[in-house]
Amino acid sequence: MDTHTSYRYEQLAELIVGMIDNGALAPGVRLPSVRAVSEQHRISIATALQAYRLLEDRGILIARPQSGFYVAASRHSTLALPSPSRARMKASAVSVSGVVATLLEHASNPALVPLGCAFPDSALLQTKRLDLALARAARQQGAQYSGYCPPHGQPRLRREIAKRAMRVGHALSPDNVLVTAGCTEALTLALTTVARRGDTIAIESPTYFGLLHTIEVLGLKAFELPTHPTRGIDVDALAHLLDAEPVAACVLSSSFNNPLGSTMAEADKRALLAVLAQHAVPLIEDDVYGDIYFARERPKPFIALEGGAHTIYCSSFSKSLAPGYRIGWIAAGAYAQQLMEHKLAFTLCGPALPQIALADFLESGAYDTHLRRIRRIFEQNLARMTRTIEASFPADTKVSRPAGGFMLWLELPRGFDSRQLFEKALEQGICFAPGDVFSASRRFRNCLRLSAGHVWNERIEDGVRRLGRLAKALLAR
Amino acid sequence: MDTHTSYRYEQLAELIVGMIDNGALAPGVRLPSVRAVSEQHRISIATALQAYRLLEDRGILIARPQSGFYVAASRHSTLALPSPSRARMKASAVSVSGVVATLLEHASNPALVPLGCAFPDSALLQTKRLDLALARAARQQGAQYSGYCPPHGQPRLRREIAKRAMRVGHALSPDNVLVTAGCTEALTLALTTVARRGDTIAIESPTYFGLLHTIEVLGLKAFELPTHPTRGIDVDALAHLLDAEPVAACVLSSSFNNPLGSTMAEADKRALLAVLAQHAVPLIEDDVYGDIYFARERPKPFIALEGGAHTIYCSSFSKSLAPGYRIGWIAAGAYAQQLMEHKLAFTLCGPALPQIALADFLESGAYDTHLRRIRRIFEQNLARMTRTIEASFPADTKVSRPAGGFMLWLELPRGFDSRQLFEKALEQGICFAPGDVFSASRRFRNCLRLSAGHVWNERIEDGVRRLGRLAKALLAR
Repeated sequence: MDTHTSYRYEQLAELIVGMIDNGALAPGVRLPSVRAVSEQHRISIATALQAYRLLEDRGILIARPQSGFYVAASRHSTLALPSPSRARMKASAVSVSGVVATLLEHASNPALVPLGCAFPDSALLQTKRLDLALARAARQQGAQYSGYCPPHGQPRLRREIAKRAMRVGHALSPDNVLVTAGCTEALTLALTTVARRGDTIAIESPTYFGLLHTIEVLGLKAFELPTHPTRGIDVDALAHLLDAEPVAACVLSSSFNNPLGSTMAEADKRALLAVLAQHAVPLIEDDVYGDIYFARERPKPFIALEGGAHTIYCSSFSKSLAPGYRIGWIAAGAYAQQLMEHKLAFTLCGPALPQIALADFLESGAYDTHLRRIRRIFEQNLARMTRTIEASFPADTKVSRPAGGFMLWLELPRGFDSRQLFEKALEQGICFAPGDVFSASRRFRNCLRLSAGHVWNERIEDGVRRLGRLAKALLAR
Repeated sequence: MDTHTSYRYEQLAELIVGMIDNGALAPGVRLPSVRAVSEQHRISIATALQAYRLLEDRGILIARPQSGFYVAASRHSTLALPSPSRARMKASAVSVSGVVATLLEHASNPALVPLGCAFPDSALLQTKRLDLALARAARQQGAQYSGYCPPHGQPRLRREIAKRAMRVGHALSPDNVLVTAGCTEALTLALTTVARRGDTIAIESPTYFGLLHTIEVLGLKAFELPTHPTRGIDVDALAHLLDAEPVAACVLSSSFNNPLGSTMAEADKRALLAVLAQHAVPLIEDDVYGDIYFARERPKPFIALEGGAHTIYCSSFSKSLAPGYRIGWIAAGAYAQQLMEHKLAFTLCGPALPQIALADFLESGAYDTHLRRIRRIFEQNLARMTRTIEASFPADTKVSRPAGGFMLWLELPRGFDSRQLFEKALEQGICFAPGDVFSASRRFRNCLRLSAGHVWNERIEDGVRRLGRLAKALLAR
C-alpha cells in the first residue's frame, strides 16, 4: 500500500468525493462556500480553494462565477465504454513490422500534434532534479564508475527498487532485481527465457504494439484473449485456451494496460493465477503504468499476490519519470539465473552513471512527490480529453475510462477506417495510433488510441477537436 | 589510413625502428648520444631522450648507465608462439554457462590482481573529459533529451562514427550507423538477424567467451575454425567447411582478436571474403580492438574491403574509451532494416545523454590524442608482461605476440591444467582467464589468457611472477 501522507487539500478533496460517491452530496447541489469550509475544517482559505479547484479540474465540481461550486451532473462521460474484445479461434503469427519505427518517427516530429505515442511529455516530467544528479555523479564519480556496471545493475538502485516493491506488498530482495534497458529489454529477456520460436503467447487484446513487435521478431505466435475495457482479461477464456493447447507464457499488463487502461480486480487476478498455476504456464507481468493510478491505492501487481514462483515481473521508469534514461527492471523470482544468462548474452550490463543518478533521486524521496504531481496531471488530461472527444467526435463514439495511465481507447462504429483517418490526420499535422496496430490479427480497424501524456494546451485540445471533426466527416461519407 | 600528425619524438623513434628492421642498426650496436642525435635532427635534447626512452619501454633499446643506449639483442621474446589451433570435425553445442558471470564477479573484486577480464583500467583510460561532457549535457540539455532517443542513436554521434569509418577506408553514411548497448548488443542483433536456433556459426578458435555465451543462449552451434596465433583464420579450412555443410554466418574479430591478438593479412582477408561471397554466407565482424594498433597503420576492417553487402560490422568504445557508457554500434549495410527491427524489439533505443556526451568528446578531437596515449601504454604493458612471463613461467611456455589490443595468450605443455592453476591463483589473490572458456568444445585446457589492460605496477608484475611460479610448481608435480 502506498502510505504517503497526503496534503490537507487532497484530504478535503477525498472527503468530498466520498460524500458524492455515497450520495450525501447529490449532482447539482451547491457546496459550502470556501470561507465556510475553511472554518469548519480549520484550514486556510487557500487550501480549501485548492481542494475545490482540484475537483473542478477533475470534472467533479463545476464553478459558477459569482455563485460558488456545484456537484457536476455526472462524474462519468456520457460516452459508452468500448466493447469487450471477442475470443479468437487460434493463435496468429504477428506482422506489425514497420509500425513501431513509423510511429516513433512521427512521435519525434515536433510539427505534429503529439497524440500518437505513449510518451510522457518532458515538460510535464520535469526531470531537472534527476539530470542534476546525473551531472553530479558524472563530475564527482566518473572515474569510480568508468568500468562495466555489475550485470544485475548498481546495488544502490536495486535496493531502492526492492524498497518500493515492498510498499506494494511484494517482498523483493535487491538480489532478485535485474536492471534492464527499459521494460522492452525486460520483456525480451523474459520471453526468450520461457519461449522458443513457434511457441504461443497469450496476450490481452488490444495490446501494446511494441509487445506485438517483439513477439513477431522472436518468431512467436500470439493468442489474443478477450479483454474487457475496464475489468481486463476474461479468465474463463484463458482457462479454455490452456485446456485446449500448449501456451508458453501469458503476458499481461497488470494495471492500466496500454491501450485500454483496464485493471483486473484482485479476485480476478487470483483466479487467473490459479488457472496459470494449474497448467504451469508462466506469467510475464508488465507493470509500467502501475505507479500512475488515480484511486486511493495502487492496484496490487500479480507478483505481490503470487510471490514469484511462476511470475516474471517487468517494469521501468520510462512512463513515470525518465524515458531517456532507459532504465527498467525485472523481479526475477524462480527464473533469476536464466534471465541473468540472457542479460549477459544480450547487452552484458547497463551504463553505470544513469543508474547512480536514479538511485540518488530515489533515495532523496523526490519520486513520491513527483508521482503525486503527475498522477493529478494525467487524470486531468484524460478528463479534458474525454470532454473534448464528447464535444467533437461522432455521437456514437465509445471511449475507455482508464483508472490510471494516460491513454484513451476510442471505438467508432463498425466499418469506420482509422487507417484512413490516420492519413487525413497526418496531412493536417495530427498524429495518433490507429487501432489495428494493437492486434496481432490486425483487428480494431474502427478503433484508435489517443495519448494524453502531454501538457494540456490549446494546440492539443484543438488537435483532438479537429480529429473528431475528421472522424465525423469520414463517417458521413 | 590514420593520418594523425605524430610527435617529433615518435617520428624519431619510428626512424630508429625502421633502421633496426632493415638491418642498418644491428642488435648490440650503440646508438648516437642523445646530444648528437638532437643536433643531427634539430630537435631538443628532451625530445631525443623521449624517443630513446619510448624505445627502451618497448624493449627495443637497452639503456646502460654511464654508457648510452644499445639496440636490444632481439626485438622478440625468446618464447615461441602458441600452436595454431586444429580443425574440428563438427559443430558443437556450446556450454560455457556461468563462466561469464563468474569471471565478471572476480573482475569486480578489487582484492584480486586483475589479470582476468578484458577490461581496460579506468586509471589508464582517464575518462574525465568525457565525464565532464556528460555532466554538462545533463545540466544544460537534460530537458531536451529526456524523451526516447531515436532508435538508431543520436544523429551527432552517428555522424562522428561515420567520419571515423571514412578514415579506415570504409565509406559509411551516418544513416547506416545503428547505435547499440555495447558490442554485445551489436553481436546479438547481428546473430539473431542472420541465424536461427540450431544453425551453425563459424568462429575463430580460441575466441572470446562472451561470444560463445551469446551463441549458447541463442541456441546456435559453433564450428571452431583453425586459427594461427598471428595470421588468424585458415581460409582453406573455412572453404572446406562451407563446401561440406550449411553455415548461417561467420563471426570474426577483424583485428587483434581476443584472446590471440592475431590479425589477418589484407590478402587473406580478401580471400576469405571471396569464399564467403561464393557461398553467400554473411560475415559478422567484431572490431572492438581495431583502434588499439601498435604498427604505423590501422589494419583495414573487412567491411572496408567488402563494402557491406554481406558484412555486418560491430564495434564499440568499451575497449578503448568508456566501458561504463555501454555504447557500441553496427554498420548495418544490406541488413540495416532487419537489424533496426531487432533493435526496436530488444531494447527500443539507448539512453540519450551518454550518447550526446560521447558525440561532444569525439567532435573535440580528443579521442585521437587519447588513442595515441593508450596504444603506447598497452604496447608497453604487453612488453613488460611478456618479459615477466619469460622470467617466471616454465621455460617451454609459448606466448602470443599481439600487434594490438592488450591480451596475451599462453600455451603450456600438454596435460597442464589451467583450471587447477585458476583455483590455486584465486587462493593467492590472482585472477586470470583459464583457456577452456575460449572454446565451444572446451579445448585449450593447457592455455590461459592474461590481460595487460591495467596500469603496470609492482602488484601486477608480482602477480604475473607468482602465477608463473605456481605454473612451474603444478608442472613439476
